[in-house]
Amino acid sequence: MGDFIAVDWGTTNRRAFRIEDGSVVASERDDRGAANVAAEDYEAEVAGIRARLGDLPMLLAGMVGSNIGWRSVPYVAAPAGLGEIAAGLDRIDDRTAIVPGLSYRYGLHADVMRGEEVQLLGAVAAGLVPADAMLCQPGTHCKWATVEGGAITRFTTAMTGELFALLRAHGVLSRQLGHPVELGSAFLEGVAEGARRDLAASLFAIRARGVLGIADDAHAASFASGLLIGADTTARIEPGAAVHILADPALGALYAGAIDALGGTSHHIDSQAAFVAGITRIQDLAA
Amino acid sequence: MGDFIAVDWGTTNRRAFRIEDGSVVASERDDRGAANVAAEDYEAEVAGIRARLGDLPMLLAGMVGSNIGWRSVPYVAAPAGLGEIAAGLDRIDDRTAIVPGLSYRYGLHADVMRGEEVQLLGAVAAGLVPADAMLCQPGTHCKWATVEGGAITRFTTAMTGELFALLRAHGVLSRQLGHPVELGSAFLEGVAEGARRDLAASLFAIRARGVLGIADDAHAASFASGLLIGADTTARIEPGAAVHILADPALGALYAGAIDALGGTSHHIDSQAAFVAGITRIQDLAA
Repeated sequence: MGDFIAVDWGTTNRRAFRIEDGSVVASERDDRGAANVAAEDYEAEVAGIRARLGDLPMLLAGMVGSNIGWRSVPYVAAPAGLGEIAAGLDRIDDRTAIVPGLSYRYGLHADVMRGEEVQLLGAVAAGLVPADAMLCQPGTHCKWATVEGGAITRFTTAMTGELFALLRAHGVLSRQLGHPVELGSAFLEGVAEGARRDLAASLFAIRARGVLGIADDAHAASFASGLLIGADTTARIEPGAAVHILADPALGALYAGAIDALGGTSHHIDSQAAFVAGITRIQDLAA
Repeated sequence: MGDFIAVDWGTTNRRAFRIEDGSVVASERDDRGAANVAAEDYEAEVAGIRARLGDLPMLLAGMVGSNIGWRSVPYVAAPAGLGEIAAGLDRIDDRTAIVPGLSYRYGLHADVMRGEEVQLLGAVAAGLVPADAMLCQPGTHCKWATVEGGAITRFTTAMTGELFALLRAHGVLSRQLGHPVELGSAFLEGVAEGARRDLAASLFAIRARGVLGIADDAHAASFASGLLIGADTTARIEPGAAVHILADPALGALYAGAIDALGGTSHHIDSQAAFVAGITRIQDLAA
């Protein structure tokens, strides 16, 4: 396996890894995400990463391949595994390529992801999750993916994190939602309420509970987070389902709490290890 | 029945009516809602209304009785009819009083309304709806009330309109949602999607459908409105339910479209006639 540089190029942040024989030997992380880099500046950005991490072939994954990134790379349609993704690489030059995202359609419904596919399939490639599994990558736009035979066969994105951020920043609930979210009884009450799948009414009840003095606003953010994550999780899992979570520890713990409360079982996966395994496998397949 | 002045004093707007023998003989409407009037200015505001509409007793309903209004008037607990509301009037002086709002609790859930109760119960008092009925008053915070024997026995508020406004103004969907909402096939597709009650995922699909070129963004706002109203309505009605709608014609038509599509029947009620009937009955009961 040849040495190369892999970049997980998100909307806000960017992480770059120098990988030798499948292991990270150097890395950097900064806020030069796609939202902060103009299309004409990517060549210089890539040259800068090579200057710091080594003059090596590079694979770029994530929003770098979107219409807010370097250039739009067509989505690969699910079902797809790492082979289909490697075959869909968009080659900028003979040693720089962008990883395509995935699309999924069923009937009128449609979904897309860019970047998460490397971690999700990398987790399988690294043996961190079984070849048939359900994976969850929480965030602003939470991804839930079903993997069968090592390929992503279907997935759903829920804008759970974005709804929470909107409600916290704007509108009638914003004054109640300033406190930190904690995995405790208020969060779990929210999960149970979320399982009723009546979001617009359950959210107003946060205001009513505050106005009537039934609930302390100190717990309102935890309740609201539980409500949104509970509604998301209820729509995704049956009791008994095993879910493999790729997330930072704090957000991962909230999703695990909701999954456990709703009768599933949760397993935490090292998302950096998953990304490195996935991108290394794509590099090998493309060599 | 004596002459009096009734004010429907909302958050943003205010309507005042001079009522003689149950009929409106003069009225005014302006933007001096509770959000735009300081607590210490209400005496002068009320004097101004009397100067314009007549030196008469006054009943004030709505957000004037909230913590952003003149003063906080305790809620009357549902079940409640016009008699309980008249008994809960907050008398400012011997000819000026504020109408209390309603609260409703069941288990951990809680809800409140201020102002809508006059229209909802007034519709029953005027014979515009039966004494046992389901009523819907759409808006930023949509109210759904069950009336039994002429009293509101339970109600639910859904922040459907507020969620739509937040998504249109902020966040990843805002660029797609600028077009006007129309009651057509995109709206009805949204209603059907909303009936799945998976709001956070259905909302993200609007972005995916746009990115993949499956749906024209010109219809995205109609789809999103149908989605939110459909999710709200599905949670509230069984097939065959009759719903009496109090709303402006445009918003009322959207809710009627969703109710009809989901197997219910809808009836439009004149909300000003309902308010006048309700507030006149409260004035009579309090005399």
